Amino acid sequence: MSRSPGRKQENHKISRELFVLTYGALVAQLCKDYEKDEDVNACLDRMGYSIGIRLIDDFLARSAVKKCRSYSETTDMIAQVAFKMYLGVTPSVSCSSATGNEFSLILDKNPLVDFVEELPVERASLCYCNLLCGVIRGALEMVHLAAEVSFLQDRLKGDAVTEIGITFLRKPEDRKHRRN
Amino acid sequence: MSRSPGRKQENHKISRELFVLTYGALVAQLCKDYEKDEDVNACLDRMGYSIGIRLIDDFLARSAVKKCRSYSETTDMIAQVAFKMYLGVTPSVSCSSATGNEFSLILDKNPLVDFVEELPVERASLCYCNLLCGVIRGALEMVHLAAEVSFLQDRLKGDAVTEIGITFLRKPEDRKHRRN
Repeated sequence: MSRSPGRKQENHKISRELFVLTYGALVAQLCKDYEKDEDVNACLDRMGYSIGIRLIDDFLARSAVKKCRSYSETTDMIAQVAFKMYLGVTPSVSCSSATGNEFSLILDKNPLVDFVEELPVERASLCYCNLLCGVIRGALEMVHLAAEVSFLQDRLKGDAVTEIGITFLRKPEDRKHRRN
Repeated sequence: MSRSPGRKQENHKISRELFVLTYGALVAQLCKDYEKDEDVNACLDRMGYSIGIRLIDDFLARSAVKKCRSYSETTDMIAQVAFKMYLGVTPSVSCSSATGNEFSLILDKNPLVDFVEELPVERASLCYCNLLCGVIRGALEMVHLAAEVSFLQDRLKGDAVTEIGITFLRKPEDRKHRRN
């Protein structure tokens, strides 16, 4: 006997808890594999980068966003569309430099650490969510925007908020030039 | 300057692509860590089990399902509520034994392998999605249902569908007895 559910239009929305727990398993495995926090952080960043360069196509197709005309617009897009889409939260954005190429994504609540109480004492330098930095860096690179992305604050380490810093490495003029 | 988005009721829905790619990174890491496919499969199952025993609380809270009265109802619940909630798909269910304790979840399409083209030749015995078996096993154990869960067919290995077999190890009578 077989029961088949009514065939509905497939949607891509899921509850994030399985993802959050699976991410925790990944970080735990890397902590087994690498003694130094720096190596775990670097590995998460590399993995994230590989994910970002693939995820960008999905993002562009699904979000149908227009081309961003400034770093500020790009950062807003990451916060308000991409984070919402893939993590279900919307960070605040702040611009932290006079030159206009440094931005922060500020998370009051970081869903990726939902099931994490605190970092173990021996893992004090771990950037638990470093995968996200790699994802952002990889995705930006695929739209010809070089950037450095790293955690500036982390509630897991006792900071008041979680803050991801994005420093764009080229000016929009250069970028336009590259693409033409 | 700081721009804060309108504070909406937080929801837990996310697009699954980041999850799927992160899961791929986890499997790739385990393939680096373990030479034998069997060891990777066992590790994924163990990780899944740890996830399942935590995820069940979230599932019960979020789904508000009633207590299931049979293995058949339980399996339907896994397929129609849990899979839908956490993976965005609804497998078909089939009962494969006269004794009524063996069921299959049949996936025409397995979202976890969205970005996987095929298994590498040297990884022919890999159960790529074995984490799911562990999750189901762990979650069932937390509602006092012992079960064996494993992949019976896998499209990644050339089968027509992906089929997860669930064999419940106790009868409902025993279970009722245990709980009272």
